[in-house]
Amino acid sequence: MLYEINEKALKLESEGKKVIKLNIGDPDLETPPEIVEAAYDAMKRGKTKYSSAYGEKSLREKLASIHKVYGDNVVITPGSKWGIFSVMYLLLKNGGNVVIPTPYWTAYALTAKTLGAETRLVKTELDSNWKIDLETLENSIDRDTRMIILNNPNNPTSGVIEEKVFDGIVQIANEKGITILSDEVYADISFVKTKRILEYGGDHILVTGFSKTFTMTGWRLGYVVASTEMVEKIAKLNQITISNVPVFIQEAALKALELGSAIKEKIRQEYRERAKMACSLLSKSKLEFSEPSAPFYMFPRKRGLDSEKFALSLLDNGVAVAPGTAFGDYREHFRISLTAPRDDLNTALNKICEAVE
Amino acid sequence: MLYEINEKALKLESEGKKVIKLNIGDPDLETPPEIVEAAYDAMKRGKTKYSSAYGEKSLREKLASIHKVYGDNVVITPGSKWGIFSVMYLLLKNGGNVVIPTPYWTAYALTAKTLGAETRLVKTELDSNWKIDLETLENSIDRDTRMIILNNPNNPTSGVIEEKVFDGIVQIANEKGITILSDEVYADISFVKTKRILEYGGDHILVTGFSKTFTMTGWRLGYVVASTEMVEKIAKLNQITISNVPVFIQEAALKALELGSAIKEKIRQEYRERAKMACSLLSKSKLEFSEPSAPFYMFPRKRGLDSEKFALSLLDNGVAVAPGTAFGDYREHFRISLTAPRDDLNTALNKICEAVE
Repeated sequence: MLYEINEKALKLESEGKKVIKLNIGDPDLETPPEIVEAAYDAMKRGKTKYSSAYGEKSLREKLASIHKVYGDNVVITPGSKWGIFSVMYLLLKNGGNVVIPTPYWTAYALTAKTLGAETRLVKTELDSNWKIDLETLENSIDRDTRMIILNNPNNPTSGVIEEKVFDGIVQIANEKGITILSDEVYADISFVKTKRILEYGGDHILVTGFSKTFTMTGWRLGYVVASTEMVEKIAKLNQITISNVPVFIQEAALKALELGSAIKEKIRQEYRERAKMACSLLSKSKLEFSEPSAPFYMFPRKRGLDSEKFALSLLDNGVAVAPGTAFGDYREHFRISLTAPRDDLNTALNKICEAVE
Repeated sequence: MLYEINEKALKLESEGKKVIKLNIGDPDLETPPEIVEAAYDAMKRGKTKYSSAYGEKSLREKLASIHKVYGDNVVITPGSKWGIFSVMYLLLKNGGNVVIPTPYWTAYALTAKTLGAETRLVKTELDSNWKIDLETLENSIDRDTRMIILNNPNNPTSGVIEEKVFDGIVQIANEKGITILSDEVYADISFVKTKRILEYGGDHILVTGFSKTFTMTGWRLGYVVASTEMVEKIAKLNQITISNVPVFIQEAALKALELGSAIKEKIRQEYRERAKMACSLLSKSKLEFSEPSAPFYMFPRKRGLDSEKFALSLLDNGVAVAPGTAFGDYREHFRISLTAPRDDLNTALNKICEAVE
């Protein structure tokens, strides 16, 4: 129902209604102008042609140096979502199952569904601060398991996986020969330090992108770091699907990396402030929640809530949020994206507090 | 081997070697500057956010008015290739077969292969001017046939389907309840008038894009015109894969449509001249070929040729062409894209003539 809410919110807006959209992780901040200029400059230089399905060499090399791998381990994708789809498609198209801790990002489950793959969900709870239970995880793996998907920091909880738990998951995966796909799209702007999948070595796969770190959501730019064999397979899939990411967008990405930490620090700081404000406001309501360790989300619960009805009625009241059912078996939860200017955020959070009274 | 040749040509270029790339349909002409400016303007207006998986309403409505359908019948895709993949994925992921006249565009067969779908090829020959035999087509359809893919004008022959033959194909498809996917990406700049799938009505599907008509290959912008149900399904697939085409790219497309026929006429004229020049040059060699009815390709034959070896050795000599085997069972053929400035084209065609002596 996540995407339905979004299309409905866009429709209301196109009809001239004011909607404060806290339903998707699309920052209100603008893409830094230097990045826009870099794209324009590249367009003018004729970087508007077909190019490599692997991505531009310069960008792959730069990302490789950041992640301490080889350029051949990097493939550029139109958004991290495409990276996730590609890997899931390649590992699951001939059957098998995928193990996913919940709450999960909606697209994982929808992708598994369209591929006809079984999802084995490992439920985590607010009451244990979203901790993944290693025994439950291990027991959900069988001979047909093709991959485990981790999302760290997590969407929708904005929690991070504790190092010991992460170690445990990797150990289980290695023992059983299962590939981990680690979606770390929020990691670079996390409020706390968190371990990264590439630190473990092995044939595990990192997927991430520029959307969140550099406020470039609508540019559709992500990448996958994986074995050269997996990179090769993804590039071959790119060749028959998306061809290549526009080169002028890849040049904008190079500029983003150049600007680097200054942008990240600004974004992190802004979202930390917003999270503080939201926690303070929501703590006065009947909502229970964990404090975010990363941008952009909060995933509060109200006992007895039907979050689908709640989201629809709140949308009529001018605030879009995502129902908890979009993230697994969490009908009493809903997800708030702190992706609106502080004034709007304040208005919306107050409306939410009123609505749960 | 089409994509391998391309990656090798890019590699040679990155090493500083001069390669005249007649291997892919990427026009040497630049994207018109007005289109670049429209994209830049949209970026500066903040059109850099997530948006609808269906595409922007304004662009869908504009395309709908051009094709005399409703906006709900149009979905925007990152390139026509993605439109083709989506439709094939949706119709073939649960099995079945697809009927494709050959020579075909490589991606159709590679996509069917990755989906595990059987391809039933209907071979056409230079000697009968690439005419599709209706009886053979009809006999290749069985209860498991999910779709027929037409490519009109055709890549690699640049031939168009005669109206009577097209009528016959549609009649067979309608009688048997089979969906036709018609890839008409070269139709708007065809040298001759050719019938379009939408003229027939029914639930057949048009896929096309901006790449060829407006010299926008690297922008990745296409669209599908289909039933609202099919549009809905493609949009849902977009939601979990590519999210949306960058809005600033869609605004550039709107500008392209505004400029419209002036651009098309210029492009058509240029390629008609090139085709004339190429026919005149190649007719002095041992190559046999049909004259192109559309941009950009020629698909000559030389008896006894092994076009894979030929393409590799020609690449070492600074000219990239695509071996005929990339388009079906055509080892004696190879494809030349007339997508280089006339001087380069002249040099390359002379090298080709020498190489086939």
